[in-house]
Amino acid sequence: MNNNLLIVGTVAFDDIEAPSGESGKVLGGAATYIGLAASQLNVPSAIVSVVGSDFPQRYLDLFKSKNINIDGLKLDKEGKTFYWKGRYHKNLNKRDTLDTQLNVLESFQPKVPESFQEASVVMLGNLHPMVQNRVIDQLAEGPKTILLDTMNFWMDHELEELIKVIERVQIITINDEEAYQLTAATTLVDAARRIHKMGPEYVVIKKGEHGALLFSNDYCFFAPALPMDNVIDPTGAGDSFAGGLAGYLAQQGHVNMETVKSGIICGSALASFCVTAFGTRALKNITKDGFQDRLETFKKLTTYSL
Amino acid sequence: MNNNLLIVGTVAFDDIEAPSGESGKVLGGAATYIGLAASQLNVPSAIVSVVGSDFPQRYLDLFKSKNINIDGLKLDKEGKTFYWKGRYHKNLNKRDTLDTQLNVLESFQPKVPESFQEASVVMLGNLHPMVQNRVIDQLAEGPKTILLDTMNFWMDHELEELIKVIERVQIITINDEEAYQLTAATTLVDAARRIHKMGPEYVVIKKGEHGALLFSNDYCFFAPALPMDNVIDPTGAGDSFAGGLAGYLAQQGHVNMETVKSGIICGSALASFCVTAFGTRALKNITKDGFQDRLETFKKLTTYSL
Repeated sequence: MNNNLLIVGTVAFDDIEAPSGESGKVLGGAATYIGLAASQLNVPSAIVSVVGSDFPQRYLDLFKSKNINIDGLKLDKEGKTFYWKGRYHKNLNKRDTLDTQLNVLESFQPKVPESFQEASVVMLGNLHPMVQNRVIDQLAEGPKTILLDTMNFWMDHELEELIKVIERVQIITINDEEAYQLTAATTLVDAARRIHKMGPEYVVIKKGEHGALLFSNDYCFFAPALPMDNVIDPTGAGDSFAGGLAGYLAQQGHVNMETVKSGIICGSALASFCVTAFGTRALKNITKDGFQDRLETFKKLTTYSL
Repeated sequence: MNNNLLIVGTVAFDDIEAPSGESGKVLGGAATYIGLAASQLNVPSAIVSVVGSDFPQRYLDLFKSKNINIDGLKLDKEGKTFYWKGRYHKNLNKRDTLDTQLNVLESFQPKVPESFQEASVVMLGNLHPMVQNRVIDQLAEGPKTILLDTMNFWMDHELEELIKVIERVQIITINDEEAYQLTAATTLVDAARRIHKMGPEYVVIKKGEHGALLFSNDYCFFAPALPMDNVIDPTGAGDSFAGGLAGYLAQQGHVNMETVKSGIICGSALASFCVTAFGTRALKNITKDGFQDRLETFKKLTTYSL
């Protein structure tokens, strides 16, 4: 087993309005957040995605500086980078999409760099399920762990293809509303059970400020979220969470209940940084000590002596 | 310090409709749930409340069998017992009140039994804040811990009196929506900070299926809720939670961050029993081993090795 982490997902421009201000056009996208979060775990990673002619060199340099391989990040000079504009409501739990321009994503054919076809951990970030399936098709034979993150949009429009992806992954991260939508269950316990039957051994249900739940067979783990009063921009929190989990699993080199639990704590810690500034600003500036301190804070959050 | 626990709150008839069925007219009320929950901690407790001529002997016998002193449970032969009828929505997080008959509660003057005026722990369950204040007035001088549980109804109708109670207690348990209503804060961290300034050293915010948060100065603790798919009737869950916390503090005989944290876990465990049957049925039938097993389950829920 190697410690390589392959990341698939959007690399994008985001344009965010929130009660605290506006971001302007900033670096975003699932693969971006996943990559930056996972870089805290010091594993060799690679992004498979596509950007357009408008994508600035400084963002490519940022990836390189974080030891993220971009051989699979296609530069499509014929088009522009995927663009998303959204506005958060006052309570930050709701948002409206104001504009979506798929641009170069529309015709994207993913190509996994040869050096990462044998990655031991593969994180399929939010993207068209057909692209996610094509990435799985390119992976080498042999043991590996594939994680999937997705969203309600694909349940609404590409359910059949999405189910094919779900059947092929060992770990899924999904938010609570999406878990209900996907399964028509009325409790999260039942939703997790139904998703488990669809394929994934580990079902991780993200509940935002209420933390996350991990279900595997009869076992359940409840990961806290850090109570905060300085949330600026929730964009990318779920991706940072997934990136922390995937990065930790790659770092550890084996996947079992213990590593998945600890990985979820890493993901929760990284998400708690992500939301404190617009875009990737907070995530890309985490120090090693800052990350360790945050992990300590999480430990204290649920430790009791009874 | 003794280990006595004084409990104030309603003793009532509840009549509950839920998606899974109807309870009929059953034993309910905040003091009832608190007393039954606290009885798991094996402390001498007493209930201060009032019932009417229609209150059956078998319920009094139930209290006695659980070592709950009822010298302060007034029998008002002129009237009927407090009655509440409610209907839960499909998702069980919402309910409508169909009928409320205050009956003997309207003219109730609480009288604390002499043997419990020096109780080291006093749990003020949901009730008119004027009654709660009158109970505090009757307590002996000396160190004691007073816990308060309340609800939005009193914020709407008796805010001034309620604030006087809040100023006099060391611990408050309140649900998230009520914390927002009471403080006009926009985050739970800020809401807790504001409530803390009103008096209580420990602010416990109940989030139902999402667990509970404890704030004290800069410290924060996140207690999980047990993910369940067999919830029948949420009535009394918050009272059972408070009863478990108060009972544990009385049992331990001292109140600090560690005992409050462990008490919250006891409360969460007892609430997880309470909701699995209508009324008090599940709560009153908990075995010693069953309770210990549940505490183990809670421990596993948040334990990780990172």
